[in-house]
Amino acid sequence: MEKPIYFDHAATTPVCEQALEKMLPYFSEVFGNPNSQHAFGRESAKAVDEARDTIAKIINCKSSELYFTAGGTESDNWALRGVANAYRERGKHIIISPIEHAAMLSTAKALAKDGFTVEYMKVDEEGFVDLAHLKSIVRKDTIFVGCMLANNEVGTIEPIKEIAEIAHSVGAVCFTDAVQAAGVLKIDVKDLGVDLMSMSSHKIYGPKGVGALYIRNGVKVQSILTGGHQERMKRGGTTNVPAIVGFSTAFEIAEKELDQNFKYVSSLRDHFIDRVLNEVPFVKLNGPRQNRLPANADFSFKFIEGESILFSLDLAGICVSSGSACSSGSLEPSHVLLALGLPEELAHGSIRFSFGKHNTIEQVDYAVETIKSAVKRLREMSPLFKSEGEIKYV
Amino acid sequence: MEKPIYFDHAATTPVCEQALEKMLPYFSEVFGNPNSQHAFGRESAKAVDEARDTIAKIINCKSSELYFTAGGTESDNWALRGVANAYRERGKHIIISPIEHAAMLSTAKALAKDGFTVEYMKVDEEGFVDLAHLKSIVRKDTIFVGCMLANNEVGTIEPIKEIAEIAHSVGAVCFTDAVQAAGVLKIDVKDLGVDLMSMSSHKIYGPKGVGALYIRNGVKVQSILTGGHQERMKRGGTTNVPAIVGFSTAFEIAEKELDQNFKYVSSLRDHFIDRVLNEVPFVKLNGPRQNRLPANADFSFKFIEGESILFSLDLAGICVSSGSACSSGSLEPSHVLLALGLPEELAHGSIRFSFGKHNTIEQVDYAVETIKSAVKRLREMSPLFKSEGEIKYV
Repeated sequence: MEKPIYFDHAATTPVCEQALEKMLPYFSEVFGNPNSQHAFGRESAKAVDEARDTIAKIINCKSSELYFTAGGTESDNWALRGVANAYRERGKHIIISPIEHAAMLSTAKALAKDGFTVEYMKVDEEGFVDLAHLKSIVRKDTIFVGCMLANNEVGTIEPIKEIAEIAHSVGAVCFTDAVQAAGVLKIDVKDLGVDLMSMSSHKIYGPKGVGALYIRNGVKVQSILTGGHQERMKRGGTTNVPAIVGFSTAFEIAEKELDQNFKYVSSLRDHFIDRVLNEVPFVKLNGPRQNRLPANADFSFKFIEGESILFSLDLAGICVSSGSACSSGSLEPSHVLLALGLPEELAHGSIRFSFGKHNTIEQVDYAVETIKSAVKRLREMSPLFKSEGEIKYV
Repeated sequence: MEKPIYFDHAATTPVCEQALEKMLPYFSEVFGNPNSQHAFGRESAKAVDEARDTIAKIINCKSSELYFTAGGTESDNWALRGVANAYRERGKHIIISPIEHAAMLSTAKALAKDGFTVEYMKVDEEGFVDLAHLKSIVRKDTIFVGCMLANNEVGTIEPIKEIAEIAHSVGAVCFTDAVQAAGVLKIDVKDLGVDLMSMSSHKIYGPKGVGALYIRNGVKVQSILTGGHQERMKRGGTTNVPAIVGFSTAFEIAEKELDQNFKYVSSLRDHFIDRVLNEVPFVKLNGPRQNRLPANADFSFKFIEGESILFSLDLAGICVSSGSACSSGSLEPSHVLLALGLPEELAHGSIRFSFGKHNTIEQVDYAVETIKSAVKRLREMSPLFKSEGEIKYV
């Protein structure tokens, strides 16, 4: 069998050649601990400084406002727990969107057990945050308002600038999880007005195991990994030099190719969405057509379990995801789709396609044909379809 | 100038060729997210399973008792915070040694602010825990007893088995930080009797950014990084496949070479210690001669600041450390040496040499000669030495 077709770039991406090449010397040659006061240490420290400068410049912050972490989940945990604990004397009211990543939702649940009150923004049926609702729930004791820049399941790009303004109107800290957006959309933290922002490397052709958290100077964030003097004493643990070098290289390339990739990948996506909507009956596109991540297409196929389509596609050599990779193994319907108002059976039957810069229009067309025949076959096996489906066909 | 001589293996080590080679395919070819339910994901998941089995077998635990983390600091934080929060209803008394790594000490301080009582074991002048004292301070409400397996600054190998017995006598969880010991000493968690154990990859010729925590089945540990379903729902964040593969490969090699490396590296160390003690006046070996990490030699040079020797050696192309890399940049004297009873001026003047399997006897001899002349020169510049030194020379 040929190499499978990869349409799961929102789960992870391969490390690009340039990033890997830049990383390589830092494993075995320039391997010093950047905290060490000697030749090996200094060379490593220089590489980390340069990487920090590179990323800070791209997102328009100071290098002193950028902290490296082990990835998006750590950044999300740090932002939420760190702000909650630093500002708990000022207030205990936390607002997040209901379609956040599990790293935020689980952390919010943990904080709720620890005496904080967690309230959720409303989102509309396309996943956009309801700003009027948000305005109505912020309070004087709100300390944290958090919303993803773009959703990992349905691709909705949120109005973060407006959310930040509402947060700041009551003196709350505004956080955005840009794990799916950084390196894909043009981001300027000053323009967005956020105080904290999570980023990840492995979603943008950089290595796994590294991410970053932007913390605006002046914002208090308690550490969650306490230890040595690393990251200006805010995050203990030996600095992961090769991963950081790979991350910044990948980010730099993503920034250079941003317009070109956006155009190309969204053309694949639009072609795919158009064909599926036209050629597959009883299908629902989840998320919006406008203000959507360029790579993302998410469909619910009525009368079919998501897992069944997933397996059929996998057998045909097409790798996609049912919901997010992080929740896989769970039998729960997608919390994102439920928040968008989908009924349980549709929230169970969704499949996420996330395209990448190496995908081709031929691969997309092959996927459409495969979906058509898989969906037809699976529905023929479904007693539910015969009764409901035939009626709707009329 | 020739490549500098590296005597700072306790800070970090280069990734060995075999580990790097095994890692490489997992960056850009087998790059799937192990949580993804498709061909790419399954291949990655298989590699992680194998790595987990490999390490579990080496330390004699079940694979289900081994959790991957981003490194030693995260493992230490997780163990201490996780146990404290899981058992806080049972008690709030925590005992650790005063010579733990900053990852433990800072975390203990944070917990002390959160209502826990932290008490410290006594250690003798060589760094060994005073077991009688420990026995006298454990209480019914002691929930956590933690001590490193081997100290990172002075190399003392602690009587963990006895410490675990004392901990268990009051029903406390026993933790050991084996970051400096795993892959260097033979470790069997069942024989040691510990409930939790931290490990790190980059100290044993594996990559940075990955470590592990052994959690004995049945021991409750609250998560500190909450998120997706990774690591049996105990540690969120996309699994760092290449790093984990590199870690297990390095660990496997370390285990195979354990006896041979122990013998070789400790012969370098003994030769070094003997020569320094014989040929450099007013020098103190910190830590014991027996039950000491094979790679470690730590000296205080009276009448001289540690930093001055460090810089002199660095100029001569010898890379060593003053205290631990994690505390570098701090102007504080070593907390380890203070706990061993050294006066402040000696705790300031210490230099740690940590040898590796690629070091040679010629490099060690060169270091001795360099130290001799550097120490002589630096003391000639010290007015303190002329008065005190001459008296003692008599």
